[in-house]
Amino acid sequence: MTTSRREHDMLGEIDVPAEVYYGAHTARALVNFPITHERLAERPHLVAALATVKQAAAAANLEVGALAHKPAEAITKACAEIRNGRLHDQFVVDLIQGGAGTSTNMNANEVIANRALELLGLERGDYAALHPLDHVNLGQSTNDVYPTAVKLALDGHLAELLAALADLREAFSAKALEFADIVKMGRTQLQDAVPMTLGQEFGAYAATLAEDEQRLAEVRLLLHELNIGGTAIGTGLNARPGYRERAVAHLRNLTGIPTLVSADDLIEATQDVGVFVQLSGVLKRVAVKLSKICNDLRLLSSGPQAGLGEITLPARQAGSSIMPGKVNPVIPEAINQIAFEVIGNDVTVTLAAESGQLQLNAFEPIIARALTAGLDHLTAGVGVLAGRCVRGITADRERLANVVATSTGVVTALSPTLGYETACAVAVEAHRTGRPALELVRERRLLTDEQLGALTTPRALTGGPSA
Amino acid sequence: MTTSRREHDMLGEIDVPAEVYYGAHTARALVNFPITHERLAERPHLVAALATVKQAAAAANLEVGALAHKPAEAITKACAEIRNGRLHDQFVVDLIQGGAGTSTNMNANEVIANRALELLGLERGDYAALHPLDHVNLGQSTNDVYPTAVKLALDGHLAELLAALADLREAFSAKALEFADIVKMGRTQLQDAVPMTLGQEFGAYAATLAEDEQRLAEVRLLLHELNIGGTAIGTGLNARPGYRERAVAHLRNLTGIPTLVSADDLIEATQDVGVFVQLSGVLKRVAVKLSKICNDLRLLSSGPQAGLGEITLPARQAGSSIMPGKVNPVIPEAINQIAFEVIGNDVTVTLAAESGQLQLNAFEPIIARALTAGLDHLTAGVGVLAGRCVRGITADRERLANVVATSTGVVTALSPTLGYETACAVAVEAHRTGRPALELVRERRLLTDEQLGALTTPRALTGGPSA
Amino acid sequence: MTTSRREHDMLGEIDVPAEVYYGAHTARALVNFPITHERLAERPHLVAALATVKQAAAAANLEVGALAHKPAEAITKACAEIRNGRLHDQFVVDLIQGGAGTSTNMNANEVIANRALELLGLERGDYAALHPLDHVNLGQSTNDVYPTAVKLALDGHLAELLAALADLREAFSAKALEFADIVKMGRTQLQDAVPMTLGQEFGAYAATLAEDEQRLAEVRLLLHELNIGGTAIGTGLNARPGYRERAVAHLRNLTGIPTLVSADDLIEATQDVGVFVQLSGVLKRVAVKLSKICNDLRLLSSGPQAGLGEITLPARQAGSSIMPGKVNPVIPEAINQIAFEVIGNDVTVTLAAESGQLQLNAFEPIIARALTAGLDHLTAGVGVLAGRCVRGITADRERLANVVATSTGVVTALSPTLGYETACAVAVEAHRTGRPALELVRERRLLTDEQLGALTTPRALTGGPSA
Amino acid sequence: MTTSRREHDMLGEIDVPAEVYYGAHTARALVNFPITHERLAERPHLVAALATVKQAAAAANLEVGALAHKPAEAITKACAEIRNGRLHDQFVVDLIQGGAGTSTNMNANEVIANRALELLGLERGDYAALHPLDHVNLGQSTNDVYPTAVKLALDGHLAELLAALADLREAFSAKALEFADIVKMGRTQLQDAVPMTLGQEFGAYAATLAEDEQRLAEVRLLLHELNIGGTAIGTGLNARPGYRERAVAHLRNLTGIPTLVSADDLIEATQDVGVFVQLSGVLKRVAVKLSKICNDLRLLSSGPQAGLGEITLPARQAGSSIMPGKVNPVIPEAINQIAFEVIGNDVTVTLAAESGQLQLNAFEPIIARALTAGLDHLTAGVGVLAGRCVRGITADRERLANVVATSTGVVTALSPTLGYETACAVAVEAHRTGRPALELVRERRLLTDEQLGALTTPRALTGGPSA
Repeated sequence: MTTSRREHDMLGEIDVPAEVYYGAHTARALVNFPITHERLAERPHLVAALATVKQAAAAANLEVGALAHKPAEAITKACAEIRNGRLHDQFVVDLIQGGAGTSTNMNANEVIANRALELLGLERGDYAALHPLDHVNLGQSTNDVYPTAVKLALDGHLAELLAALADLREAFSAKALEFADIVKMGRTQLQDAVPMTLGQEFGAYAATLAEDEQRLAEVRLLLHELNIGGTAIGTGLNARPGYRERAVAHLRNLTGIPTLVSADDLIEATQDVGVFVQLSGVLKRVAVKLSKICNDLRLLSSGPQAGLGEITLPARQAGSSIMPGKVNPVIPEAINQIAFEVIGNDVTVTLAAESGQLQLNAFEPIIARALTAGLDHLTAGVGVLAGRCVRGITADRERLANVVATSTGVVTALSPTLGYETACAVAVEAHRTGRPALELVRERRLLTDEQLGALTTPRALTGGPSA
Repeated sequence: MTTSRREHDMLGEIDVPAEVYYGAHTARALVNFPITHERLAERPHLVAALATVKQAAAAANLEVGALAHKPAEAITKACAEIRNGRLHDQFVVDLIQGGAGTSTNMNANEVIANRALELLGLERGDYAALHPLDHVNLGQSTNDVYPTAVKLALDGHLAELLAALADLREAFSAKALEFADIVKMGRTQLQDAVPMTLGQEFGAYAATLAEDEQRLAEVRLLLHELNIGGTAIGTGLNARPGYRERAVAHLRNLTGIPTLVSADDLIEATQDVGVFVQLSGVLKRVAVKLSKICNDLRLLSSGPQAGLGEITLPARQAGSSIMPGKVNPVIPEAINQIAFEVIGNDVTVTLAAESGQLQLNAFEPIIARALTAGLDHLTAGVGVLAGRCVRGITADRERLANVVATSTGVVTALSPTLGYETACAVAVEAHRTGRPALELVRERRLLTDEQLGALTTPRALTGGPSA
Repeated sequence: MTTSRREHDMLGEIDVPAEVYYGAHTARALVNFPITHERLAERPHLVAALATVKQAAAAANLEVGALAHKPAEAITKACAEIRNGRLHDQFVVDLIQGGAGTSTNMNANEVIANRALELLGLERGDYAALHPLDHVNLGQSTNDVYPTAVKLALDGHLAELLAALADLREAFSAKALEFADIVKMGRTQLQDAVPMTLGQEFGAYAATLAEDEQRLAEVRLLLHELNIGGTAIGTGLNARPGYRERAVAHLRNLTGIPTLVSADDLIEATQDVGVFVQLSGVLKRVAVKLSKICNDLRLLSSGPQAGLGEITLPARQAGSSIMPGKVNPVIPEAINQIAFEVIGNDVTVTLAAESGQLQLNAFEPIIARALTAGLDHLTAGVGVLAGRCVRGITADRERLANVVATSTGVVTALSPTLGYETACAVAVEAHRTGRPALELVRERRLLTDEQLGALTTPRALTGGPSA
Repeated sequence: MTTSRREHDMLGEIDVPAEVYYGAHTARALVNFPITHERLAERPHLVAALATVKQAAAAANLEVGALAHKPAEAITKACAEIRNGRLHDQFVVDLIQGGAGTSTNMNANEVIANRALELLGLERGDYAALHPLDHVNLGQSTNDVYPTAVKLALDGHLAELLAALADLREAFSAKALEFADIVKMGRTQLQDAVPMTLGQEFGAYAATLAEDEQRLAEVRLLLHELNIGGTAIGTGLNARPGYRERAVAHLRNLTGIPTLVSADDLIEATQDVGVFVQLSGVLKRVAVKLSKICNDLRLLSSGPQAGLGEITLPARQAGSSIMPGKVNPVIPEAINQIAFEVIGNDVTVTLAAESGQLQLNAFEPIIARALTAGLDHLTAGVGVLAGRCVRGITADRERLANVVATSTGVVTALSPTLGYETACAVAVEAHRTGRPALELVRERRLLTDEQLGALTTPRALTGGPSA
């Protein structure tokens, strides 16, 4: 049998289950937002970040004389527990919520207050002794706590994505090395262009990911500008002198992120969500690149008979319920879909950002949800792509060599010597007759065998370093 | 202690936990797609629809002589259980998955086969007796089963959204009646325009929702065109003559949807996802309308002192962790965010749709996920908006009347009589001096009192029916 | 030497060039909106539609006794001229403009008034005789004139797109017939699936376009609900009794569109832009389909040596400035880009629609610009695709036949007889050894030659009608 | 009478008008792409950049001995003319074009060749003497020339936008100073929050723009990495040793941009459009900020009687064709629409970027069109916003002061002293009774007059520096 505890807030009294750590405000939010049934608890980085902010605030308040030692210590202990993964199941508010994150902040205040009360040997709900707002939320408002916690959470998510991307990049680099000597036809606009190596192709994937990692690292730094201490609309009302600087210092300490700083203009920092838009834009860039790479992998591995068949992806599951033996590129396909999600999320973030009004953006919760979901899915997808796909890719050397041998694309290498128009005529003739272009060049004595040989070595064609 | 069962597929052997109903294919999908951790089970409409399709297929196969009575009966019973809500926890594949839904279909085939085996008194995994593919998936392919199931699932979701919208529309209509006699200033471009009634304002919300319901009903009908029986790429290979027609007839029967039909061109129907794009576009339209309405509600209830303050939304929770007594429009804010999500999802759906290639769109799983998530969240949000916000709205009659009395907007009503330029001069003078416009008209003897009276009755101004 | 004419409005006096037909309001708009330099004149459908609305309004005002015969006649003549293509160069306002279309309406009022004055033998600017607002705009407001004109313009654009799509559909149908007997491998997820005919492939494109034409026809009907007569916020203030009904009747007459009707709730109709969102969604659907088709055409024609090489697109221009003889699929590539533009425009339209506030959406001009641009470009692109690409496509029959002969995809047809697992083993072995699957079946005596023959006729494989 | 000149290319002969400088390839492109009728000439930055690239290439080719002095000099002179604004009308290719920019490159090659021939005293079309491809395009391919030119063009566009943004920022800063002493109510979620100054509000706009300028400057630097010299797919085939380094050096020289560098991995650089996605994302961020600011300006200036009425925007044109004296916020409304366009364009850019395949992205033309259009429109809009709106804004000091005096928002300042729950009770009572909150505090002797005075000075409330 569940017993309950009676709490009250400005709207009156409300019962909460006796065993929970959250209180009245959270209970009302549960009724108001039965939307996605995805709870705060599903974002451990955010839950931990909320506890981190509360712990830093308590430490700062203690130092500026706003909070007594005993409640400060209890709050600190409760926060430390949460940061270590405890009590996450008490963060129950829906990720889509009105109120600009107030319910999230309240949920944190209440859980921390009740756990702190417990640590002090008092009853949950005995807020006269330690109050969710007067003590845990002291000198704070949702409008500075929430975005600060979201930024710290995103920093944690980004660390994970960056690690996954580095691993994927290394997987591509290893393949680039493995395939360094395989000459193949390069393509532009899906039409045969000029020769290159398969190693160059895979090396380009590694290079492009390296650039994305750099862009992510840059935008990550922008997240380190915080508005903690701004309170309400950014005026800092009710935060004691010195509180802000100390709170940021404690955050640096607790997180180990030395680049955390306080924003210059806290009014601006309170209403501005530009950094989230920027991050979303860079995530979209990463999504675009990954999707393009996966499109390429699916194309290069198309077949086995009726496709390009240049590479083979490792078989990971039966591909069809009706076509025996069919294997599909299921891993790249999953990544494509994650990319589509992230690109759609960017529009969601944009709309939410554009809809901010005056001193606050009320729609930060959907921004936080979209960004953290995208980061989680990208990280998972990148991990699977590296571990269960790229590392197992093999090349069909024979097929690749055959195609290069019969291609007219090598005519391009003769163009500076023959002139564009003569080269063109040779290529058109080769297509028309199906005869090898080089044979036609020889037959018409357009170039000597010596010239031809020099112009068409793999090294000359693929731009490799000359011996 | 968990024991396991050894299964095999084209890739070899794999162990699955002894107690589960799914098998080898599902087990591989779990390893391949650890992306969102949202499982099929979180979409009960889809799980039930899969079972419905399998049941219809078994019945059709029985009738065309492709399936014996005994396995057909066992499959039918297993499907009926799932349609009644049982075994949903066995649908464990991630909602984001490569393979165009193959893993979803395989999950369904395996659960149904193993439950059917159990019902036959046989061991799970004893596929020689009843096989997930040779019996449960008989005459089917993922490419016809999956989109058919998704369409049936969406139909169920739409029924719920339509019911919620009808309820919200009625809530607005009731308010339109309640506020029918309250005259207020209408606004265009946020500038005072001409008078109207608050009832007209709320009536317009009801009218606009009615139109959206109609659009949803239209697109719902488009979902009823199915490609079941197409198999693979739509050629119908391996489906017996008569199977297709019978399968659709059974679907009509099982679902009670009389408008279910078979597509004319199954090759086209297999690769085409136009209906999902269309549905997504209409959902976006609904989202746009709801967001606009919520923007208006937040604007009209802004204040209490420094805003428009025309209406008051019911207080649902404390609005601030720092500002005592503050109440925020948290319900409309939540709806705005759901709308932003749905609009973003539309881009996701669009990208997935555009990326289909040749005879199939491999990205239907993300389309299904985006649409069903949007529908669920819209339905929940619309319910909360009606029940916890609109029905409790009150008007500040005094404030509304005061504003109309001092507004220069009534000059418009005099314009046909005075001429646009004279009326303009009066309005400009009224703004400049702060004096009531009608007083200036009287003072300058531009109109008689009688004329003025007739032109400025509430009925004349707001376009109500004349007595 | 340019001389000028002095006009005035509520902001004071302003000079306009003597030779122009527009006046003070337009002149101010030119200063306020130097944004895109795309003028109204670049949208002839819209200019004509504005004149149509003004002509209908004048006729209705004449009938209800609000306008005298002489000015009505002059206005009618001026409007008829514009509808016939004259004076379009006087529609100079930028397509991106603030003011919800007021500057567009004013531009029309002024040009029509000054041309009417001229027709009456009076001076331009002699507004005492015939006034842009008191006469040309009589009983009207921008808020009913502008959306009405935009809807009529869109109807004209849609007629053109529908004609272009029908032509493209016929081009695909002709190819479907031409290629009806060419068997090829169908593909799902870019992997070889089962055989089909090239005719089926092209027939599916025709079928999918037919569906889109139907969807466009449906949304076109929704455009026929007008809010003319609503004035200002929809109350109908200053429009005489009977005016509205007569104005709509005249519009039906002038346009020849019998389905034009007046909206039921004019307050709702004034603020609602749902029909534009719906239209944009359907245009996006068309864009998605066209893009997918063009992706397919580029893929099927990839090569010539290193690609699929199943079809050849007609060469339309040299493909490279460096690679002699290269030909690229430039027409499909252009269509892809138009599709990307239309899909982006849909987001623009969505944002504009969502941003409407209270009794009006101030952002209809960008909606009109985005929709008309998209329609123009789609129409042009579809025409080029039909005329300069599809009709010239040829097939490489030999290559297609060779691929089918060596494919393991035919194993699917044997699966119902062999069982999925045996068929699977055959397919895996065929891949491994490179030997034809049917040969393995024969060797292992899994099926008799007779069985094999019956199961693998082109007709059996591709689902064609049995003889 | 127009005479014509016969040219030929790989598809055969084609006539071009005698008086034009472009040739066969351009003529074919005119037939193939009659899409938008926006010609290259409408992007002067791009036309000039193409000439800059060609000039740098000629100089480099001269130095590495690939080009003789005489043609090099003629090419250089022709390019210099184009860079000075001449011959732009000869750049006639449609901005939407297939072929990955080949038609643009060809158009430039032909115009430069024919002008160079003319400068050499030869006939246009006398390509044996100086060839568009063998001389003007020497050592180049579209795939390196086109993106290089687009990046240089974007750099020019960005310089203009940055100047416009700096001007707008200064306009806001000036207003921040002017309004520094005006206390007003701050708002969160449109509900009264705590006091601030109007100067702080406008200062935040300046601060937020400053951040955007910084982000734009960062992404501008990323544009400076070039792939010139990569040719075709990035292998550098047909470009002489040393050419690439010299070409980049000449570009640095000609443009005066010292940060131009060659990409490390030219294969990657050829196919990658990440920098355009990144730029588009940052433009979207700028659009979001500007739209939010304009939303605020429209909200703060709403009224005059029925709105917030805190500020007045300068009247720029009559606001209505029916409502005399109405003035609308037309400038901010135009900016909102530009923002919506830019946000939509971002989706277009994203789709185009995601659709790149293998060694090239064929869709760069639509990317270039979308980015340059957005930049042009943003620059124009920002200029109008600063010059015709922000600089003329005035404040209604009296109204602002009155609202602060009657607001309950000051209770927040008492909360640390009273405790959250007592403060809450006061606020609720004030709302209920309509009595000033401070009066209630005094009446209940919750604080002394001295305490009250100290806690509610403007400086204490708005976070200004203490004396």
